[in-house]
Amino acid sequence: MKVLVAEKCGFCPGVRNAIDLAEKTLAQDKSGMVYSLGPIIHNNDEVSRLAKLGLKTVNDIDEIESGTVLIRSHGVAPEQINRLKVKGVKIVDATCVLVKRVQRIAKQLQREGYKIVIIGDENHPEVQAVVGCAKDAVVITDESDLDKLPQNDKLGVVCQTTQSPEQFGRMLGAIGHSNFNELKVINTLCKEAINRQKSAISLCKQVDIMFVLGGLESANTRKLAELCKKHNMATFHLQNWNDLDKSVLHGKNIAGVTAGASTPEWIINILVHNLNSLDTW
Amino acid sequence: MKVLVAEKCGFCPGVRNAIDLAEKTLAQDKSGMVYSLGPIIHNNDEVSRLAKLGLKTVNDIDEIESGTVLIRSHGVAPEQINRLKVKGVKIVDATCVLVKRVQRIAKQLQREGYKIVIIGDENHPEVQAVVGCAKDAVVITDESDLDKLPQNDKLGVVCQTTQSPEQFGRMLGAIGHSNFNELKVINTLCKEAINRQKSAISLCKQVDIMFVLGGLESANTRKLAELCKKHNMATFHLQNWNDLDKSVLHGKNIAGVTAGASTPEWIINILVHNLNSLDTW
Repeated sequence: MKVLVAEKCGFCPGVRNAIDLAEKTLAQDKSGMVYSLGPIIHNNDEVSRLAKLGLKTVNDIDEIESGTVLIRSHGVAPEQINRLKVKGVKIVDATCVLVKRVQRIAKQLQREGYKIVIIGDENHPEVQAVVGCAKDAVVITDESDLDKLPQNDKLGVVCQTTQSPEQFGRMLGAIGHSNFNELKVINTLCKEAINRQKSAISLCKQVDIMFVLGGLESANTRKLAELCKKHNMATFHLQNWNDLDKSVLHGKNIAGVTAGASTPEWIINILVHNLNSLDTW
Repeated sequence: MKVLVAEKCGFCPGVRNAIDLAEKTLAQDKSGMVYSLGPIIHNNDEVSRLAKLGLKTVNDIDEIESGTVLIRSHGVAPEQINRLKVKGVKIVDATCVLVKRVQRIAKQLQREGYKIVIIGDENHPEVQAVVGCAKDAVVITDESDLDKLPQNDKLGVVCQTTQSPEQFGRMLGAIGHSNFNELKVINTLCKEAINRQKSAISLCKQVDIMFVLGGLESANTRKLAELCKKHNMATFHLQNWNDLDKSVLHGKNIAGVTAGASTPEWIINILVHNLNSLDTW
């Protein structure tokens, strides 16, 4: 069948940097003790590939005694960095520069006297790392969280980098209805994520069926799939080619493919190659 | 018929101060040349009453050569104050303290490097005065004005004091969708106006018919009438008792009365007294 790939998709510079640093660290390591604190990216296939090269994924600092620790692109809270320093392990920081910027801005806004509000998912490691940078920060995901907002106060607002501009705008509007005295909002959205979203939406309109490739835990991939679904009902979020239930291709002639920022090129290539090889049903 | 008056309605402190200053200035004046630059408040009845006491309303500074000039509660642009100073006339400044605050904030935000955005009606004198304080300020009233917003820039946002929190929130949400780098929003809404709105909405639900008293040019009265209409279809915006088409009272038992911030008490009293005197039809 005919396959169109979104103009912008797959690894963003932040993820590419994290993978490069992981490969470099593993190549130079002689101890056999290179750890990632949490999965280095939200992509099981890539995590498995790096595990075969020696990367050990742990979920808690207590599991690390020595060796080298990779800080993944989502970053970690300063308190965790301090715990690692106390242990004397080597730290390789692969935090995305844009995520670092959110952390820096949250600290700066707090110094300026603002109460920090983060628009995002409170369970996402990026958001948890930002919360760790700003004491008493409040995370709001949707309108049901608005009662958490401090009243009649100065609010300093940042956003999880992978949220959509639509979600950011909607929540700013909701905050705008609240009793605030002052609002300082720094646009911390990642342009890479926005470009992937725009590119995916435009592709959705040209195809019969749309595939969004990426980890099921990947916030930016899920957001991408959610958006695509709005523009093409026949949208499927797959981790890889093996996830595809081929019956959904029945009657479809043109497939669109996009992929989250944490989806490696080889995963995209396999899906595109295999779809291309299929006769149109 | 039974008449319920909104808990909060009529003159706000800013308007009361302007009227007090006008009366005091007229009482002390011996020249017979006391001017108001534009109607002192948006209420024809009160303007007529003060005209009988000697207040001359002019629409242009060119009409003033000497004497005393009252700056109304909506304020004027600094450039106009300068023109008056050049003429050597005495200036009595009755600009509402909250309007002065918007002007001060707009200037301060501009000094901090923000492009000024005013949410409000560009034809309203309060907004025009704020525009006069901040070079290249952009006024946005609704979504159709969003293309006026500077792109990828630092925006400093203030609001016309008499807008509703709903409108403020809606427009902040719309601005939040745009390509901004940073947003600093100061809540410049007047609490008096908000309290009048809340009080009117609660009254709307208890009455068969609702009267909103105030000048047809009065922004806060129009906003009040607009909101009441949403909560009680039988809402009528009247300037005074004479405006009332009595046929609308047919079948109504309980009337609600509210009034804008520029509506004098005597106008409210006449309406309430006359409605009270009517037999229920």
